[in-house]
Amino acid sequence: MSEEKQETRGLVIVYTGHGKGKTTAALGMCIRAAGYKKKIKIIQFIKGTWKYGEMDGIKLLEPYVEMEQRGRGFVGIVDDKEDISTHIRAAGEALEYSREAMNSGKYDHLILDEINVAINLKLIKVEDVVQMIKEKPEKLHLILTGRDAPQEIIDIADLVTEMREIKHPFRKGILAQQGVDY
Amino acid sequence: MSEEKQETRGLVIVYTGHGKGKTTAALGMCIRAAGYKKKIKIIQFIKGTWKYGEMDGIKLLEPYVEMEQRGRGFVGIVDDKEDISTHIRAAGEALEYSREAMNSGKYDHLILDEINVAINLKLIKVEDVVQMIKEKPEKLHLILTGRDAPQEIIDIADLVTEMREIKHPFRKGILAQQGVDY
Repeated sequence: MSEEKQETRGLVIVYTGHGKGKTTAALGMCIRAAGYKKKIKIIQFIKGTWKYGEMDGIKLLEPYVEMEQRGRGFVGIVDDKEDISTHIRAAGEALEYSREAMNSGKYDHLILDEINVAINLKLIKVEDVVQMIKEKPEKLHLILTGRDAPQEIIDIADLVTEMREIKHPFRKGILAQQGVDY
Repeated sequence: MSEEKQETRGLVIVYTGHGKGKTTAALGMCIRAAGYKKKIKIIQFIKGTWKYGEMDGIKLLEPYVEMEQRGRGFVGIVDDKEDISTHIRAAGEALEYSREAMNSGKYDHLILDEINVAINLKLIKVEDVVQMIKEKPEKLHLILTGRDAPQEIIDIADLVTEMREIKHPFRKGILAQQGVDY
């Protein structure tokens, strides 16, 4: 690999694990990238994991950062009123939308937020995501977040960080804090 | 502890470990907090870990986020031309400055970036940092970053996440990428 090729190659970055900070680290990367006037697209695969405050925060980084909500709400938990086929269709459409954004040439970074969760819930196929990663334009940085990243995703990634929970305040009975957790 | 007290209590949050994403997660927290119009102060204990791009990115979040460079450059490595006493003085001043910022009432979040590294390099004493944490105003969120967080810091923290490196591109001979690593 030549020097030049190394400098221009985009990375496949995974933030996974059960600890806090996965999406938050992806957000932090947006600040870095926006500072270099790079264009970043964030596509959310699971609705409801982002709260208004962070969406308002993202707006401060316009026009560098764009966010798109594509998946449906939490799957299979108490307040989920959707049929599983609705979730599958929404996630499939999110993946197709992601592929189009990836190939549009408009972005330097593409963040697929909680895509690992969508794979683990069997809303999308890991093979389809791996295939998409293989077709990534060379310069684009692709960031995938979500707990329990499948081995196939780890194998194809350049940089994988596991956020491990060492200590968590919910265990101590402290409620979520505005501006920190939501 | 009453409901109300739980809601207003600020957390002591630690991002540690040898993986990527510690300072990046703290940056991401700035986006969240800025979205809620909270005021955030970042104090850097080790100079040179932040690059121009991310400092420019932080400027996009003004007036919510303020950054202050207080420590000296990398300690004890090749291009370190400073005497150790210079580093110790700078780190001690950074800690004193942090305490003043903490108690000023001006901020909702205070990020002490790479403070764990300053402790491990024996530039500041862990007891002094623990004492400062104990004196934290109740509502303030205090975020400490840096690899190898001392046990004393973990013990007093509410939320500790270890960023573990599962896979790293430098191992594969890929150079740092602008807008991602620097």
